[in-house]
Amino acid sequence: MEKRLEYVKKVVLETGELIRQRLNEEMEIKEKDGQRSNLVTSVDIEAEQYLVEQISKKFPKDSFLTEEKTISLTKSDYVWIIDPIDGTMNFVYTSKDFAISVALYVNGEGLLGIVYDVMADELFVGVKDHGASLDGKKISKLKPVPLEKSIVDISLKSVLSLRNKGIAELSNLTPEIFSHRNMGSAALRIVHIGLNRIHVYISAKLCVWDIAAAIIILEELGGVHIFMEKKLPFNSDNFWFMAANNKEVETQIKDKFFCN
Amino acid sequence: MEKRLEYVKKVVLETGELIRQRLNEEMEIKEKDGQRSNLVTSVDIEAEQYLVEQISKKFPKDSFLTEEKTISLTKSDYVWIIDPIDGTMNFVYTSKDFAISVALYVNGEGLLGIVYDVMADELFVGVKDHGASLDGKKISKLKPVPLEKSIVDISLKSVLSLRNKGIAELSNLTPEIFSHRNMGSAALRIVHIGLNRIHVYISAKLCVWDIAAAIIILEELGGVHIFMEKKLPFNSDNFWFMAANNKEVETQIKDKFFCN
Repeated sequence: MEKRLEYVKKVVLETGELIRQRLNEEMEIKEKDGQRSNLVTSVDIEAEQYLVEQISKKFPKDSFLTEEKTISLTKSDYVWIIDPIDGTMNFVYTSKDFAISVALYVNGEGLLGIVYDVMADELFVGVKDHGASLDGKKISKLKPVPLEKSIVDISLKSVLSLRNKGIAELSNLTPEIFSHRNMGSAALRIVHIGLNRIHVYISAKLCVWDIAAAIIILEELGGVHIFMEKKLPFNSDNFWFMAANNKEVETQIKDKFFCN
Repeated sequence: MEKRLEYVKKVVLETGELIRQRLNEEMEIKEKDGQRSNLVTSVDIEAEQYLVEQISKKFPKDSFLTEEKTISLTKSDYVWIIDPIDGTMNFVYTSKDFAISVALYVNGEGLLGIVYDVMADELFVGVKDHGASLDGKKISKLKPVPLEKSIVDISLKSVLSLRNKGIAELSNLTPEIFSHRNMGSAALRIVHIGLNRIHVYISAKLCVWDIAAAIIILEELGGVHIFMEKKLPFNSDNFWFMAANNKEVETQIKDKFFCN
C-alpha cells in the first residue's frame, strides 16, 4: 500500500502541473450527456488518460473506474476510482476550486484517497486506519460543531431536485445554520469539512468518483456521510449524498428536513 | 484623481499585506449586531484603521463612510467608502475569498473603485469613464451572456429572505440558469461578473460599503445593477441588490422571479 501511495501521489502532482499548464492554452469544452451544465473539456480527458497510463504502467493488474470513461472497468480486486477534474465548471469559468480525485478500493473497501486542489496546491491524503494529511502534515481529528454553528454547502439545484423528488425540503435550512455556501466541487467540499472550513455538504446528484477519495479522508478525521444507497455503487449511478462534521448534526438535518 | 488613485492603490496593497500577516496570528472574533453569522475580527478593525489613517494623512479634508465605524462620517464633497474585509466569514473559516473594498464618491457620484482579492492577489480598479483594470491590465467590455448560460451567485438565506419579504421567489431559478454558486463576498462576486467568472449576483441584504467600489468597476465594463432604493444610500441602511452581465438578463430575472 505504501508503494502505491507514494507513486500515485507523485502521479497526481504531475497531473496537476499538466492541468495548470493547459489553463494557459486553448481547450475544447463540450456538454456531456445532453445536459447544458455538465461540462467536459479536452483537459479532463487528457488528465484522466495520464493518470490511468501512469498507474497502469506501474500496477498493470489494477483496474479503473473513471468519470470520463477513457478506460473500461475490468475485473480486479484493486480498483482505482478517478475523477480527473472534479468541479469542471469552476475549472472553465474561474480557473480555481477544482480537484483531482483518486481513490483505491480493494474488494469494495476504500483504502486510499487522494484529493488535490490543483490551484491552491493542497494535497489531501487519507489512508484507511492511518489518518489523513494535508501536504504531508497530519490533520487533527474533528471536534463536533453544532448545527447552529455549521456552514452548509448545497446548490439551489440540489435543493430543488431533492424537493421535486420528495426526498427533502431544505429551503428553510438557513435559520437553523450558521451560513450557506456553494462552491461546486464535491471532493473539495468533503475534505474541507475535515479542515473545519465548512461543516456539512449536501448534493442531490453525485457519482462514485466525486466522493470515493474524499470520504476516506473524511472518515479518518471522524466525519460522517450518508448516501441514498446502502453501499457505494461501483458504476455510473447517481445518488444523493450528505457529509457532516458529526453524526448529531447529520441526524438533526435528516430529522428536520428529510422526508421519512 | 490620478494622484488619489495611485496613492490609495498603494495603501490597499499594504493593507492586504497586513491582513495576510495577521492570518498566521491569533485574532479576536466577535458577533456583530447580535447576529450570529455577522462576524467582525480584530483584523477588520486594524485594517480599516490603517486605511483611514493613511488616506486621511494624505487627504486630510476627505471624509469616510466605513463598515466598522472606526471613524464617523463628516461633511465633505469627497467621501471614501470602505469595507476593510468584505467576506469576513470566508476570512475566518477558509482564509480566502475575501476582499478589501475602497471607493471614492464625490458629491454622491462614484469616481473610483478598488476591490482587492487579498489571497488571490488580484487588484481590480475602476475609474468613472476611464474603464476598469485587473492588476494594471485593461479588462475588455462584457459580451452579453443569456440567462440559460448564466452562473448565478445567491445564498439560500437571501432566497428565503426575499421570499419571506414578498420581494421575489427564486427557489425555482435553477432550471432557467446554467449553474448556481454562493461564495460569500459581494464585492468579489460583482467584479467577477466583469470577468465572466459568474454572470449574476443577487443578495437580499447589503450595505453601501459592500458594493460601492465594485459597481463602479462593473459599470465601466458594461454590466448592470439594481437596488431596492433608487439611489445608493450613504448610511448603514441595508437593501436588496442584483448585478448582472447585461440588462436583458436582469429584466428576465425581475420579470420571472420578482414580485412587483
